[in-house]
Amino acid sequence: MRHIHIIGIGTGNPEHLTLQAINAMNAVDAIFIPTKGAEKDGLAAVRREICSRYVTNSNTKIIEFAVPKRATAGRTYLESVDEWHAAIAERYSKLIRDLPEAGQGAFLVWGDPSLYDSTIRVLERARQTSALAFEFSVIPGITSIQALAASHRIPINLVGKALEITTGRRLVEEGNRADSTVVMLDGETAFSKIDDPDAEIFWGAYLGTPDEITRAGRLAEVADEIVRIRAEARMRHGWIMDIYLLRKGHDFDDL
Amino acid sequence: MRHIHIIGIGTGNPEHLTLQAINAMNAVDAIFIPTKGAEKDGLAAVRREICSRYVTNSNTKIIEFAVPKRATAGRTYLESVDEWHAAIAERYSKLIRDLPEAGQGAFLVWGDPSLYDSTIRVLERARQTSALAFEFSVIPGITSIQALAASHRIPINLVGKALEITTGRRLVEEGNRADSTVVMLDGETAFSKIDDPDAEIFWGAYLGTPDEITRAGRLAEVADEIVRIRAEARMRHGWIMDIYLLRKGHDFDDL
Ligand SMILES: C[S@@+](CC[C@H](N)C(=O)[O-])C[C@H]1O[C@@H](n2cnc3c(N)ncnc32)[C@H](O)[C@@H]1O
Ligand SMILES: C[S@@+](CC[C@H](N)C(=O)[O-])C[C@H]1O[C@@H](n2cnc3c(N)ncnc32)[C@H](O)[C@@H]1O
Repeated sequence: MRHIHIIGIGTGNPEHLTLQAINAMNAVDAIFIPTKGAEKDGLAAVRREICSRYVTNSNTKIIEFAVPKRATAGRTYLESVDEWHAAIAERYSKLIRDLPEAGQGAFLVWGDPSLYDSTIRVLERARQTSALAFEFSVIPGITSIQALAASHRIPINLVGKALEITTGRRLVEEGNRADSTVVMLDGETAFSKIDDPDAEIFWGAYLGTPDEITRAGRLAEVADEIVRIRAEARMRHGWIMDIYLLRKGHDFDDL
Repeated sequence: MRHIHIIGIGTGNPEHLTLQAINAMNAVDAIFIPTKGAEKDGLAAVRREICSRYVTNSNTKIIEFAVPKRATAGRTYLESVDEWHAAIAERYSKLIRDLPEAGQGAFLVWGDPSLYDSTIRVLERARQTSALAFEFSVIPGITSIQALAASHRIPINLVGKALEITTGRRLVEEGNRADSTVVMLDGETAFSKIDDPDAEIFWGAYLGTPDEITRAGRLAEVADEIVRIRAEARMRHGWIMDIYLLRKGHDFDDL
């Protein structure tokens, strides 16, 4: 049976790669690399750089493929994602069908495959809908949450307290509820729209890459600066990936 | 100035090590390894194995040290942790003082240093309270959360939804609130005490090690079995580390 590895590659620093990831990349017949269009060119470049650095097996082919686009008109968010996943599942099935019989392939996933990424979900769907039999396994990778905490040199949770991980959209709808909240997928600087001036923010963009930027401070004091820096950086690079932690209170406050 | 690296080493599989971690281990004068007593022997053994596999620099010394014990009698939980951190900070200061001037040292941290671990916090305290000037940096590692998701081959969050990470103690107090809840540090099988029979549980123990065990299913159907397996495994090994995801509903339920 064909076997697919879903490999987490970390968030931009090629040294985030684990030995497990490198060994898998050298065990497969083909590595599939998505090309997502201009605004994500930075990501495709990191994937190519990782392959050229670490793939030493001359039998491993690098295969680039175009990811279908998500149509949004006249659909709810979930409908549009569902339809899009179906289209990607078909694309994946074709790539897998082209592998040698009992061959192995790999998808390289930004960060960790389990966190706000649909490669696992879509491959599971491909397995259930296509006539092709294949197995898959998952190799963990460093997430942008860990890259954020490492760059700020902070624990991500307060002692004994909980942590919420959420999206920009939800932060706006639900507010800043937990003691510690990590916000991802925020294209709208949701932190600047919540009313919690005393919260601390630890923000980072392009983490792990040479373009990394970080800022931290009381939300009331640094929110405007971050909005400005973010807009400038996004303009300059043509794309941005950023993430932040919002924190209320301190360790041992209840002492 | 002396420099300390806090290095995440993953959760038991030596192949979780990143190249960044391995490079740092080979750049330092000393690697400090805690010996925590019998019940955690498994962990000290993994740390030793990692050093003997990856440290190729013959100038890197491996230094084992005893971690002070936490006193709990007559103290609240937070008081006891606060006092314990102060004692560990002193221990760390001594280790760092013994480094050559402008030398480098490393602490190897289980999983990622930012997640339910106090090495960062304690080193920050050592920096502020001891007369010794030093800098530190953090190298991310694979967490037990990612190891859990990888072994079950599942996304950790539902599409577009939030994720809560919490402790066993809090799960009992606060209930199973989020769509997806990861529970760590649970010595009391808190999952068996919550009333949510339809929730799904994805459980794993000794993840990444040759002793790895996983179970998944509807809470009502598998909770008893997990409690039993957990007790048996804990007895057999003398210690256990386990983690689980509780999940309500499915992707695209609101479609
Ligand atoms: C589709 S999610 C993928 C997350 C990824 N699987 C992970 O483990 O980090 C993309 C979001 O991750 C965050 N992100 C990913 N890489 C990042 C980086 N290098 N710097 C800052 N944020 C990043 C941003 O919040 C971005 O909107
Ligand atoms: C003190 S916390 C440290 C967490 C660690 N820093 C990480 O990144 O996973 C210890 C808790 O992590 C979880 N854990 C750590 N390693 C594990 C493993 N190999 N298998 C299952 N759970 C693990 C358990 O919930 C355990 O109670």
